[in-house]
Amino acid sequence: MGVTHTFPHRRTTCIHVITLAVNDLTRALAFYRDGLGLPSEGVIGTEFAGDETNPAGAIAIFHLHGGLILTLYPRTELAKDAHSPFGPPKTGEFSLGHAVPTKEAVNALLATVAAAGATVTAAPHERPWGIYSGYFRDPDGHLWEIMWNPQLEDI
Amino acid sequence: MGVTHTFPHRRTTCIHVITLAVNDLTRALAFYRDGLGLPSEGVIGTEFAGDETNPAGAIAIFHLHGGLILTLYPRTELAKDAHSPFGPPKTGEFSLGHAVPTKEAVNALLATVAAAGATVTAAPHERPWGIYSGYFRDPDGHLWEIMWNPQLEDI
Repeated sequence: MGVTHTFPHRRTTCIHVITLAVNDLTRALAFYRDGLGLPSEGVIGTEFAGDETNPAGAIAIFHLHGGLILTLYPRTELAKDAHSPFGPPKTGEFSLGHAVPTKEAVNALLATVAAAGATVTAAPHERPWGIYSGYFRDPDGHLWEIMWNPQLEDI
Repeated sequence: MGVTHTFPHRRTTCIHVITLAVNDLTRALAFYRDGLGLPSEGVIGTEFAGDETNPAGAIAIFHLHGGLILTLYPRTELAKDAHSPFGPPKTGEFSLGHAVPTKEAVNALLATVAAAGATVTAAPHERPWGIYSGYFRDPDGHLWEIMWNPQLEDI
């Protein structure tokens, strides 16, 4: 495929891990594991304490289908690990998309996440390009789009 | 799997689309397609013009292995689509992880992205939990971690 010269060795998806920076690891884990029902062993890596300059290792990991891994990591530690300080907490500048097979499923899932503590920012509606979707923000402000998209063949 | 009550219908990965908000769609496309070599048809959806309240449709799409889709979308339009205004441009509060099979490949890929205009924030080094990695920010500030992780079995 076309990425062979820069991503020469990957055999599955190009992006392996999505790490969300969170203010409160316990709260974020509760939202994704207990609220949304994503499977996780809970917080691991607590044996790596870190210090003022070295990041601690405590993290929550979710193994999703397709080999993709979602992790929750304190923003203070991600900033140290990346050597790239973050500013004050604010909403993220991206969105993660989750597709479902019907419009009714879009409505139902947004109701579920709202009950789990998310903020629905855009109620589901039709886009001119054929997608029916709504958005929510998780307790740390990360933006998700729940969509019905007939062009996604594998849903 | 454990998410059946909230994500009942998905058959592949749970996250289908990662949308990065960008300031300049042409610049971002050039970085990811021409600089990193990710395959894309270029900007599509320009027939949906949008207006002050409705988002325009112009977007760049990358179909990655595993069914995952990476899209680049102007931050002004994502904010309108999500009904959730963004603040001034700043660095994102997450990271996307790309795993490679050797430490040498980590070094080589970071050199490639630096040549394509990325800013390497953390040179590759060993973490106490067994990962060798470095970080870069793309031209819009989005954070990526290039890692060698012996625990990722499918690399």
